[in-house]
Amino acid sequence: MKRRGARLTHLDARGAARMVDVGAKPATAREAVAEGFIGMNATAFRAIDRGAVAKGDVFALARAAGIAAAKRTAELVPLCHVVPLDQVAVRLDRDRRRRRVRVEATARAHWNTGVEMEALVAVSAALLTIYDMTKALDRGMVVSGVRLLRKSGGRSGLYERGSRGRAGGGPVSGGRRRP
Amino acid sequence: MKRRGARLTHLDARGAARMVDVGAKPATAREAVAEGFIGMNATAFRAIDRGAVAKGDVFALARAAGIAAAKRTAELVPLCHVVPLDQVAVRLDRDRRRRRVRVEATARAHWNTGVEMEALVAVSAALLTIYDMTKALDRGMVVSGVRLLRKSGGRSGLYERGSRGRAGGGPVSGGRRRP
Amino acid sequence: MKRRGARLTHLDARGAARMVDVGAKPATAREAVAEGFIGMNATAFRAIDRGAVAKGDVFALARAAGIAAAKRTAELVPLCHVVPLDQVAVRLDRDRRRRRVRVEATARAHWNTGVEMEALVAVSAALLTIYDMTKALDRGMVVSGVRLLRKSGGRSGLYERGSRGRAGGGPVSGGRRRP
Amino acid sequence: MKRRGARLTHLDARGAARMVDVGAKPATAREAVAEGFIGMNATAFRAIDRGAVAKGDVFALARAAGIAAAKRTAELVPLCHVVPLDQVAVRLDRDRRRRRVRVEATARAHWNTGVEMEALVAVSAALLTIYDMTKALDRGMVVSGVRLLRKSGGRSGLYERGSRGRAGGGPVSGGRRRP
Amino acid sequence: MKRRGARLTHLDARGAARMVDVGAKPATAREAVAEGFIGMNATAFRAIDRGAVAKGDVFALARAAGIAAAKRTAELVPLCHVVPLDQVAVRLDRDRRRRRVRVEATARAHWNTGVEMEALVAVSAALLTIYDMTKALDRGMVVSGVRLLRKSGGRSGLYERGSRGRAGGGPVSGGRRRP
Amino acid sequence: MKRRGARLTHLDARGAARMVDVGAKPATAREAVAEGFIGMNATAFRAIDRGAVAKGDVFALARAAGIAAAKRTAELVPLCHVVPLDQVAVRLDRDRRRRRVRVEATARAHWNTGVEMEALVAVSAALLTIYDMTKALDRGMVVSGVRLLRKSGGRSGLYERGSRGRAGGGPVSGGRRRP
Repeated sequence: MKRRGARLTHLDARGAARMVDVGAKPATAREAVAEGFIGMNATAFRAIDRGAVAKGDVFALARAAGIAAAKRTAELVPLCHVVPLDQVAVRLDRDRRRRRVRVEATARAHWNTGVEMEALVAVSAALLTIYDMTKALDRGMVVSGVRLLRKSGGRSGLYERGSRGRAGGGPVSGGRRRP
Repeated sequence: MKRRGARLTHLDARGAARMVDVGAKPATAREAVAEGFIGMNATAFRAIDRGAVAKGDVFALARAAGIAAAKRTAELVPLCHVVPLDQVAVRLDRDRRRRRVRVEATARAHWNTGVEMEALVAVSAALLTIYDMTKALDRGMVVSGVRLLRKSGGRSGLYERGSRGRAGGGPVSGGRRRP
Repeated sequence: MKRRGARLTHLDARGAARMVDVGAKPATAREAVAEGFIGMNATAFRAIDRGAVAKGDVFALARAAGIAAAKRTAELVPLCHVVPLDQVAVRLDRDRRRRRVRVEATARAHWNTGVEMEALVAVSAALLTIYDMTKALDRGMVVSGVRLLRKSGGRSGLYERGSRGRAGGGPVSGGRRRP
Repeated sequence: MKRRGARLTHLDARGAARMVDVGAKPATAREAVAEGFIGMNATAFRAIDRGAVAKGDVFALARAAGIAAAKRTAELVPLCHVVPLDQVAVRLDRDRRRRRVRVEATARAHWNTGVEMEALVAVSAALLTIYDMTKALDRGMVVSGVRLLRKSGGRSGLYERGSRGRAGGGPVSGGRRRP
Repeated sequence: MKRRGARLTHLDARGAARMVDVGAKPATAREAVAEGFIGMNATAFRAIDRGAVAKGDVFALARAAGIAAAKRTAELVPLCHVVPLDQVAVRLDRDRRRRRVRVEATARAHWNTGVEMEALVAVSAALLTIYDMTKALDRGMVVSGVRLLRKSGGRSGLYERGSRGRAGGGPVSGGRRRP
Repeated sequence: MKRRGARLTHLDARGAARMVDVGAKPATAREAVAEGFIGMNATAFRAIDRGAVAKGDVFALARAAGIAAAKRTAELVPLCHVVPLDQVAVRLDRDRRRRRVRVEATARAHWNTGVEMEALVAVSAALLTIYDMTKALDRGMVVSGVRLLRKSGGRSGLYERGSRGRAGGGPVSGGRRRP
């Protein structure tokens, strides 16, 4: 209730968009981990599965796309700052039972602003790359469950998503801040 | 079942990734429509809601981000072709009951390859932009239900997602091709 | 007076920005010519003047910057279409009496939308490049008179700016359309 | 007069262009403010005016374009350094009497080189975006008065443009450095 | 001898650079094939060799880098036209005896200008990516023999490099045009 | 021999590509120098030679292309970090006897990772730009001898290529590390 008048930090007093000034924030070690899923039909999943086993190019390209996109986050998300990242890592796993691929991306930097957008952009680009390479077999694939899992560094302290985060689930939101 | 040996068109006989050669395909009028959702807590939704009513910058920026990203699809998705688009339109709607924003993007071109990736990229970039502008109020927002709704033009004919596409739903996939 | 209710074509009925759909427009030979000026103090002008005579790098870089920017117009101007240009040419001239440099850019394409933004972007980027290379000698340089001189091709026919276009002048606007 | 032999710092002894080496300069708080104008006819101004009042998309997009371009200054201006900006803010005001729009951009960074080019690029991109969205109503719009208003941080100290800077004026240059 | 006064087509009569105007050239099926090599020490080659066998990520990333760079040729080479490519394919082969990797890239388009720069850019980017991923094991790797092998389409007809093209060789040039 | 099990640092334990985490490395003054060559026939060399003498645009554009590409290294080479460079300098020399052009590029930064890729990318882009501007006179030009000459800063200390580096030579590799 006390948050009722909460303001969007990216809007000024007149409601105009602006980049938040991060000049006064100290550079600290930042890390963010995000995840996301893409579900598909049996034909598509089997092709991905075989491709991943045999040669790896589908997953290798999805990883490359995720890393490349993370480095260009500030070009994609209008008010993001350019953050020279220390590392981006993208990991893909197949979930045979649910016929979906899970993407997890980690971004790290020593900087004065967080890197959660970088992690989320990496996840999204990797998922869309899988879509692109598989779409001839299933136009109906769905990207879901793209969200922040963990975030550390910076004034707001550690954020960790609660364990109730069911993959592919609906618009549940939660998590907790610990200083 | 007859699709059992279905091959990923983006892999050659050795499993190496490649751009599909679209040189032999005729240029026809292509259109693709995609949608996606971002769910959030009450605080964030209220701020978005107010922002959208008052000045429009949150939604205007999300639209701009979606359009800009669509034009750069070939830079984000490794094997996509550069497609000079005739139009990109991004539409945002608030769903107060479910506290989420829906993004719908339409891409159009006269070209020899489809534009579904452009529509999906537009949706993703717009959703991530909303995340970015609202994240101070809710780190737990979830992007879900990013999928193709409709696609026309080209050899594969019309694709339309079945009406059962429940927003924010899990990894259901489906739809039908009509020649 | 009859234009009183003139609508911005880049806004839809709800006032939301969108790319104009150019799919129905025929591809024709398009050309646009734009100009612009940068004025500076005697020290800076002399250095430019000497540089241009001796080695050409200042002007060569300004030309390169103008051409490069024209090719990326759709990344800079949110609602511009990607237009594969047939040619961009950037020409620079020194006006010793007024101590300023004039930039003129020409863009050409066979496409279904005009290329005036490409010409204007080329002019702007070339002028800013001169500013950048000369700014140590004069922080007070002013870019002025950036405008469209001529435009042909497309439904709106030939546009030519009236001869009264005084260089560096104020916000006069004019010109005439001829079908 | 003592500046007669002034050299362009971006040219080496042989006249070849180069990036200035900023490695020995300390990182300090940098700020730059720039402005610029676009003048237009009554029809275009009225449409902008209405659009800005009603929904804000024209101005929101111009702001977004300015911020995005500022972040990519080093891609547009050949010898500019990549500077991770702390903030970019773009402000637009309508001047009904003179039928023009004024753009003011502020760029901030803690870095070893100035950010005046970032501010000037933001102004130029915002102005060209207004041109693009309004050009159907007036091809004769003129961009003018693009200049640096203020610059602080770095060895050269504070620069402030003299108050005689008349909007839309000709190639007057001036201002003063204070250590 | 008759070529003595041969002019660079990218310079105008005053020696200023410009994009060649390709507007009058017809769109035809264009293809270009280029190759290049990177030689390395035994340690690096063995690591590459193992990597290529085991998981493919080194080669997959080199392929992805080559394809991505080809699509952005016009951003890297100042006077190149933006060419929407029909296809880019990048192939890598290991030459164990000489401890080097060979890259071959093919670019295709239906356009009014050739795509040899796209093929050469793809080769260069793939080779540099291998360098990057292997440099911890050998700083002394050398890129060599980057050249056009074949080019078809367009007014100048078929070009095929003579069979004497020795891999990694010196600045020999040759080949022949056949109309 | 003791390097037999040498691992590629860009692959994780499962062979998947990743950016190396440079967060724990201290920021130090980094410098890298690279070189490369392009050989051509007499007609092309003479045209370049004349162009370089008269107006400089060919070399000026090659320099500009090299500098611009160096700043975008992280977009071209998938696992490279974004490094804000202090300086890039590109130098071109004609070797009349061997009819080739030599490009040397120097990159500098205070950062936690090296800049050798930036220097190599600058060399490659400058060489390809010369190819592009001269290709009408000689399709058979060959890029060769692209390699690192010197690298300082960082944990691995000084690297200097042995003096035996013969221009345009084959896949010789070597050099030495000195702590």
